[in-house]
Amino acid sequence: MLYNFMNDYNECAHERILEAITRANREQDNSYGLDTRCERAREKIRAHLDGAASDVQFLVGGTQTNTTIIAACLKPYQGVIAAASGHINVHETGAIEATGHKVLALPSADGKLTAEQIERAVAAHFADETAEHMVQPGMVYLSQPTELGTIYRKAELTDIWNVCQRYQIPLYVDGARLGASFAAQGADLSLADLARYTSAFSIGGTKLGALFGEALVINDPLLKKDFRYHIKQRGGMLAKGRLLGIQFETLFTDGLYFEIGRHAVAQAQKLTEGLRARGYAMMVESPTNQVFPILPKTLLRELGRSFGYAFWCAVDDENDAVRFCTSWATPPEMVDALLGSIPAKQ
Amino acid sequence: MLYNFMNDYNECAHERILEAITRANREQDNSYGLDTRCERAREKIRAHLDGAASDVQFLVGGTQTNTTIIAACLKPYQGVIAAASGHINVHETGAIEATGHKVLALPSADGKLTAEQIERAVAAHFADETAEHMVQPGMVYLSQPTELGTIYRKAELTDIWNVCQRYQIPLYVDGARLGASFAAQGADLSLADLARYTSAFSIGGTKLGALFGEALVINDPLLKKDFRYHIKQRGGMLAKGRLLGIQFETLFTDGLYFEIGRHAVAQAQKLTEGLRARGYAMMVESPTNQVFPILPKTLLRELGRSFGYAFWCAVDDENDAVRFCTSWATPPEMVDALLGSIPAKQ
Amino acid sequence: MLYNFMNDYNECAHERILEAITRANREQDNSYGLDTRCERAREKIRAHLDGAASDVQFLVGGTQTNTTIIAACLKPYQGVIAAASGHINVHETGAIEATGHKVLALPSADGKLTAEQIERAVAAHFADETAEHMVQPGMVYLSQPTELGTIYRKAELTDIWNVCQRYQIPLYVDGARLGASFAAQGADLSLADLARYTSAFSIGGTKLGALFGEALVINDPLLKKDFRYHIKQRGGMLAKGRLLGIQFETLFTDGLYFEIGRHAVAQAQKLTEGLRARGYAMMVESPTNQVFPILPKTLLRELGRSFGYAFWCAVDDENDAVRFCTSWATPPEMVDALLGSIPAKQ
Amino acid sequence: MLYNFMNDYNECAHERILEAITRANREQDNSYGLDTRCERAREKIRAHLDGAASDVQFLVGGTQTNTTIIAACLKPYQGVIAAASGHINVHETGAIEATGHKVLALPSADGKLTAEQIERAVAAHFADETAEHMVQPGMVYLSQPTELGTIYRKAELTDIWNVCQRYQIPLYVDGARLGASFAAQGADLSLADLARYTSAFSIGGTKLGALFGEALVINDPLLKKDFRYHIKQRGGMLAKGRLLGIQFETLFTDGLYFEIGRHAVAQAQKLTEGLRARGYAMMVESPTNQVFPILPKTLLRELGRSFGYAFWCAVDDENDAVRFCTSWATPPEMVDALLGSIPAKQ
Repeated sequence: MLYNFMNDYNECAHERILEAITRANREQDNSYGLDTRCERAREKIRAHLDGAASDVQFLVGGTQTNTTIIAACLKPYQGVIAAASGHINVHETGAIEATGHKVLALPSADGKLTAEQIERAVAAHFADETAEHMVQPGMVYLSQPTELGTIYRKAELTDIWNVCQRYQIPLYVDGARLGASFAAQGADLSLADLARYTSAFSIGGTKLGALFGEALVINDPLLKKDFRYHIKQRGGMLAKGRLLGIQFETLFTDGLYFEIGRHAVAQAQKLTEGLRARGYAMMVESPTNQVFPILPKTLLRELGRSFGYAFWCAVDDENDAVRFCTSWATPPEMVDALLGSIPAKQ
Repeated sequence: MLYNFMNDYNECAHERILEAITRANREQDNSYGLDTRCERAREKIRAHLDGAASDVQFLVGGTQTNTTIIAACLKPYQGVIAAASGHINVHETGAIEATGHKVLALPSADGKLTAEQIERAVAAHFADETAEHMVQPGMVYLSQPTELGTIYRKAELTDIWNVCQRYQIPLYVDGARLGASFAAQGADLSLADLARYTSAFSIGGTKLGALFGEALVINDPLLKKDFRYHIKQRGGMLAKGRLLGIQFETLFTDGLYFEIGRHAVAQAQKLTEGLRARGYAMMVESPTNQVFPILPKTLLRELGRSFGYAFWCAVDDENDAVRFCTSWATPPEMVDALLGSIPAKQ
Repeated sequence: MLYNFMNDYNECAHERILEAITRANREQDNSYGLDTRCERAREKIRAHLDGAASDVQFLVGGTQTNTTIIAACLKPYQGVIAAASGHINVHETGAIEATGHKVLALPSADGKLTAEQIERAVAAHFADETAEHMVQPGMVYLSQPTELGTIYRKAELTDIWNVCQRYQIPLYVDGARLGASFAAQGADLSLADLARYTSAFSIGGTKLGALFGEALVINDPLLKKDFRYHIKQRGGMLAKGRLLGIQFETLFTDGLYFEIGRHAVAQAQKLTEGLRARGYAMMVESPTNQVFPILPKTLLRELGRSFGYAFWCAVDDENDAVRFCTSWATPPEMVDALLGSIPAKQ
Repeated sequence: MLYNFMNDYNECAHERILEAITRANREQDNSYGLDTRCERAREKIRAHLDGAASDVQFLVGGTQTNTTIIAACLKPYQGVIAAASGHINVHETGAIEATGHKVLALPSADGKLTAEQIERAVAAHFADETAEHMVQPGMVYLSQPTELGTIYRKAELTDIWNVCQRYQIPLYVDGARLGASFAAQGADLSLADLARYTSAFSIGGTKLGALFGEALVINDPLLKKDFRYHIKQRGGMLAKGRLLGIQFETLFTDGLYFEIGRHAVAQAQKLTEGLRARGYAMMVESPTNQVFPILPKTLLRELGRSFGYAFWCAVDDENDAVRFCTSWATPPEMVDALLGSIPAKQ
């Protein structure tokens, strides 16, 4: 195989990260995230939050991060509103339910929820005379970008935030690929905006060049207390927590996190343009680092010999929608090679 | 108010049940369902099962019964397939999720699931290369009758049973209103059939003239072991368990359970016919003890002064679908009075 | 067998309760505890609370009541402090753990906890630098009377309450046999005191002459909100909730609840005195309706032909501690008959 | 500070591990543990198992590994037997309870359980007529070495295994520091023995020179099926799973894992001997890489300026028990320096 576009975690880590770990290797430090490197990483992240008094916690993985913050927010009889296509509803093997909570799935064609849709669902619950026989909406989960690579714009997020505020429901944004969202065309949501208009959000490391790790930024003061108990209980507290600190410190030094996002998005968008120029339609318009073209099965079979991609869904008898994913590690020449293997649509 | 058709648990219990409890009042007996009356009730129920070696357990309520059997069947990473309108998916405040399991909701217009639909969902899961990132279908939940009063016929149930057998997935039938199903026109499923073609099913008492109580019939030998631990842990083990025994013994003496179902269904069907004769359509065709007519809002407001009913859903600007429910206690003359208050559709 | 002293739920219910249910049988009413009878029972109970603005909720069973209130109080990383002999730690098949919480068991010889003991445990937790690696004490569970029939006096309860207040930890008293505590010699804790010095407490019906049922009195305003969601989710919301209302209304009319407690305690204490007069020691001094004598095995074998009792624990090669339990239903002549079968200790 | 003996995860990783990751950095591979490096690591580990057909799974952390295997083994009404001092009972913030299960803690002075003790507990449960009101012992948890650094010998483990087999209860050994056990004086348990005499055991990486990671060896065929669902649900499935593969492949190449254990134990035992030679007693005799001396508080205050250690417990007014921990990274000269700072006991 020439190159695998299957996902954005096919390689290990950006070299600067490995170098930083190697440099710090024999330095003794505290454990469980109480070390100097996590503290420095926290400062580096907070510097982007425009003065918000947010807490920053580091966890190992995404499923863990989502589960930990969601279980921390909800009372036993509450559930979390999410797009039906949301990661927590589909691809975490019921991790949310395993903590006792229902995912209240709302339909979405492009992976996004709207403020109206959320308000309708919440208002309908509280208007029902038998509400207590049903799961109470206790939280809203979004992801930025979504599972389909789409992004929320600032006006959309603040509308949702206003609904959440009105009903006193926490809003959490899963930023597993957050770095890619900043580089998208039309993107107008900054880290500082996320600190302002969410109760908590995550900054994903795994898909942005780290070995692993998610930074969880907690803005709502009520969620901060005792949060480390939650992390420990859900298995997210790394003994050598400094590894998370070193990685996020590196990512937030000299803008590496944003640079990685820009590189990945640039490769994906070059691929998108090339595919469009060849006459292929997209299943969904993604401005980030995932590309979802509809391609003939015969072509896909051919491509599969040299390039990895993910099957997404069947479109018709002759065409499938697939996903190509780019990352910090994707060489531009591999995008060229891929495009070079794709003839114009007949 | 003249009469409340809101639901089938507006009164206490069939008089024969109260008399039986009163008669047995000072008899000392064992506790927690290990008494002579539960044993006799078990025998009375088993006599209907055509020789099946089923266990019969008694629990207090329906949510509890569903939760207990479902949590007993599933492994941590498994979920239960149910109609989106199913009681466990909507009206149990997330009791299933509180035990750690996702409800895998499938769409249904009439409250029923089909064998094809179930097979498609299960097969799709196991065919997926990333199946382990998703909740595994580990059980199928039906209700007889369904939330919308519809019933499964024998051929439908055996088709579903065959799918479940093929994938080695337990099949559970929630019979909260089971007694009403036997009296429905076209009904061809007996208790013996349920013992043959399900892993477990419940025989609801609350809605069939008991003060409370559900009999859980466990057919699958693998589910029988240690089941009383489950009942105790989920809060369903009544100290004075004999109360459940006395009630089910009474219900299954001289066919009272079936007689109650026939009475309730007869009243509901008389109501249905009367409404149809007056030109009103039904939201769904229910052959059991729930009637779902579509009626003008102006008429409903008027009716509401004398009769209780449940709002079901808005149909258009001028009409709502509502539910009238009948029971062992519904006096035929009250159905007449209700119909007498409903003019022919204009 | 002449009479079974095995426990206090060997018979059904006090006759006044059955009569009240029978009288109300065909009265239509609302369901799920929103009926007129529950409302009246609430008022009758509140009349004993000296003006406290407590909520009163009715649940079916004791395990359910304990589980529901405890799970409602605790955050995911918190546990509940209880005596090692406490019902929730031993005899509820892990129902508390099934909701995700550890029981933090403290040793106790007589079933009681002391304020010092609780304070030491709580203070030690919060003083530990690695506290977040351990379950945080989030609640205190007592029972009145305890599993061993002993009772808390007012000074003991207020001391514990003060510790709980100091650490902002809810205090819950399980009153499964509460009625018996009021009749004990030396008892000085009223219902009004319990409303004043606990966050919540239960008033047990099952062991005090009801068919079933526990009243949960919630004093802490923070625990009141949305509590019916908890009840529904944990399976404790009875469809025909009026049955709980009728029973507690009856128990709290003309002092029946207290009368039942006095009768049961009087029989138990007569038995205790008779045993002492015959030279037998008690394993524990219980002033309520449970008696724990140490008796020779040979005598016990003999007694077992005519009287039921519960084995408690082995004392030595020749003697066991056993439990005799009395109730509203225990005929005084049966206590005489029992004593008549017990010769003086040799 | 000269050197921190606080624990065995004060540094990052053995250099060979970092080098291996750096070498493999840009190699594309599959994700979620389905990669070539995990496969190679599995083979390397299996080569030590004397032909056992064990599965090997890789997880990120220890709490996670324990929680995942324990929740996978137990039915909802079962609990896990562990020493009261066991990690799962004390230091995992109730992670086991959060999955719904009680830890059935047995007393232990040296961190070990005996076969007799376990058999007594299990037999007592099943002999109880009211067993179903109590949590059923469904699993046994040991750790090798224990929290106190002590080790099981082969005869002890096989005795426990025989009890477990007799009652058909899975036996799991937590090997967070397993590498240290092999180097202990008197150790006679090999990896192959663990594969033979346990249902599952873990091989800890974090405390043996890895950045992070635990290998879970599953010997019982019944536990193998669908295990990756469990890992995903509990948050233990690393996207870049190859990192675990590379690390364990390195640890099990040229005996590095055992060499690291030997180095750590040698330093600890040198420290132990030095302390004994100076007249100090040990709180517990640990033959592995943890040392628990009883030292005067005045001396400890002095030592604390140059060396890190963990406070363990107060012994008397003048002495505390503390813990010194050694690892792959501990320089022998630092042990000399530490001993050099400790005068002979007066």
